[in-house]
Amino acid sequence: MSESSTVSRPTLEAVAARAGVSRATVSRVVNGGDGVREPLVERVRRAVEELGYVPNQAARSLVTRRHDAVAVVIAEPETRVFADPFFALQLRGISKELTAHDSQLVLLLTEGRDDHARVGRYLAGGHVDGALVFSLHLDDPLPELIHGAGVPTVFGGRPGWGDGTRSAVYVDSDNRGGAREAVRHLVALGRTRIAHITGALDQTSAVDRLDGFRDVMVDADPRLIAEGDFTPAGGERAMRELLDACPDLDAVFAANDLMASGALRVLRERGLRVPEDVALIGFDDMLPVAEQTDPSLTTVRQDIEEMGRLMARLLLRGLAAAAGSQGGLEAPSSVVLPTTLVRRASA
Amino acid sequence: MSESSTVSRPTLEAVAARAGVSRATVSRVVNGGDGVREPLVERVRRAVEELGYVPNQAARSLVTRRHDAVAVVIAEPETRVFADPFFALQLRGISKELTAHDSQLVLLLTEGRDDHARVGRYLAGGHVDGALVFSLHLDDPLPELIHGAGVPTVFGGRPGWGDGTRSAVYVDSDNRGGAREAVRHLVALGRTRIAHITGALDQTSAVDRLDGFRDVMVDADPRLIAEGDFTPAGGERAMRELLDACPDLDAVFAANDLMASGALRVLRERGLRVPEDVALIGFDDMLPVAEQTDPSLTTVRQDIEEMGRLMARLLLRGLAAAAGSQGGLEAPSSVVLPTTLVRRASA
Repeated sequence: MSESSTVSRPTLEAVAARAGVSRATVSRVVNGGDGVREPLVERVRRAVEELGYVPNQAARSLVTRRHDAVAVVIAEPETRVFADPFFALQLRGISKELTAHDSQLVLLLTEGRDDHARVGRYLAGGHVDGALVFSLHLDDPLPELIHGAGVPTVFGGRPGWGDGTRSAVYVDSDNRGGAREAVRHLVALGRTRIAHITGALDQTSAVDRLDGFRDVMVDADPRLIAEGDFTPAGGERAMRELLDACPDLDAVFAANDLMASGALRVLRERGLRVPEDVALIGFDDMLPVAEQTDPSLTTVRQDIEEMGRLMARLLLRGLAAAAGSQGGLEAPSSVVLPTTLVRRASA
Repeated sequence: MSESSTVSRPTLEAVAARAGVSRATVSRVVNGGDGVREPLVERVRRAVEELGYVPNQAARSLVTRRHDAVAVVIAEPETRVFADPFFALQLRGISKELTAHDSQLVLLLTEGRDDHARVGRYLAGGHVDGALVFSLHLDDPLPELIHGAGVPTVFGGRPGWGDGTRSAVYVDSDNRGGAREAVRHLVALGRTRIAHITGALDQTSAVDRLDGFRDVMVDADPRLIAEGDFTPAGGERAMRELLDACPDLDAVFAANDLMASGALRVLRERGLRVPEDVALIGFDDMLPVAEQTDPSLTTVRQDIEEMGRLMARLLLRGLAAAAGSQGGLEAPSSVVLPTTLVRRASA
């Protein structure tokens, strides 16, 4: 579990120290169980106020019970969550793992980044044992809010920014290695004018895949790199840009399959044959997309459902370790899963 | 708000009456705020135990604050939630409305009905101000669990079963009227052997649409009615059954567009032309499905996103009325929205 889960806000212990009473006394005052003498109650209340301690359900659960619930936060508008099968797959893995442990999946949906402060408040309100957070973007306030909420968290994808994620536990795929393998495959096919459609470059997965592309194409013509956004429409836009700037390109590595499917439509529209004129590789091995395109997509496979399952498993293991229910169990550390090149017709 | 939200579990008032103390005293003991004399604390604690009062976050919020969060429960496995665009549309309406009121959408996902007891526990745990529940099936334990949790609830679709829903507030479409209009349109086109593919008959929406079909086709050949399940695969299965039993059928009314799209594939497979040989009508006007089939679908339009928005609005209004923040506001009652026949190429 990340350190952010323990150091973020005033603890019961801090209140006890400030009030000069035992932890049990603070707990009793906060939880309203036993009677505590009025002068002590007053001292505890003053310490609570001075430290800004929030006696929420989470704090109560420290001395009472767990919620058996885990929040999932996808840092995308709900429209995108339901349009991109990537999220459904990750949620499927999470749902299976949480259900196996009888923990409730609590998906916090938003209209966009403006709502993340409200998500932070809900997390701080003590309604869940922990949180799984994915699809973070640069400058997103979520990591800081989660840090402030003091909720044990596992991230999907390396967060890579902000104080709140410095010691974060995350599950990721080997994005850079996978990208390298894709581009090397295009080189091995004899392609020389290889273009790249990036994902949203405010996300580490997109940056890492771009780095993998550059590892192989060290002196790549900058006009052979176009920025996409992981959506089919973004793939179409980027493909048009690339063809306008470099009509002689002979291969494209798109940072996900949805963008590759958009690029494919534009290539066909311009009368270019895939793979004869332009070889095309995607990323994800998102089914049925990757199999149903014509031609079917060569792509870099990552096990998205397994990533979700692992995130949930790491979180639950961390919670168990923190609760001391499995003595000697280490707090979990991050995991980076390998990728595989899947060869189909497009390259 | 349904009565189920107030009568289900022992209240603070009941504890106060049993203990012979004021409501404020109970509140103080439960919330751990002010010091209360030990004998009184003891009496309150005994009353709490005798009545089985659960001093949860929800109860606390009565005397402290709201959570500004609303649970959404879709009584389907998460795989179905992400596969059927109906749910995404309803969630879109809910999300917009809740966000406009700065209330957090908390989607509780499950693997299936076995997990509904856990959902009930989460709702009873006092993590949300209210719940929006849709796609209920016959014999689902959810209504009773929600009744027991004492959470203000608005249902999507008339629940129609179980004590817990007797006085339920719901938002529905005029399923029976819409079905009648569709079948009358087929009759007006001169069709005489009109078949019906039903939805899952453990849901009121499917039963109501079947009733609408029967209102018009009073003496329908029972072999002209086949049971589906609202999925494309279910539509294919039912269409095969119908054609095997009644090869002379000349029209089909399917209880939703996804099943109509499945039926269309089977009709084409059997070499039947739509609408020349067999006229076809769906239900929902689910885009892009209804427009992208070939031929495009004549269908019964219901405003699914608006249904979601209305559910959220009714719940928030009920919560405001219960909190007395809008004096004189009536508790909301159920709403049934009209439907419209949308004529396209298939009938």
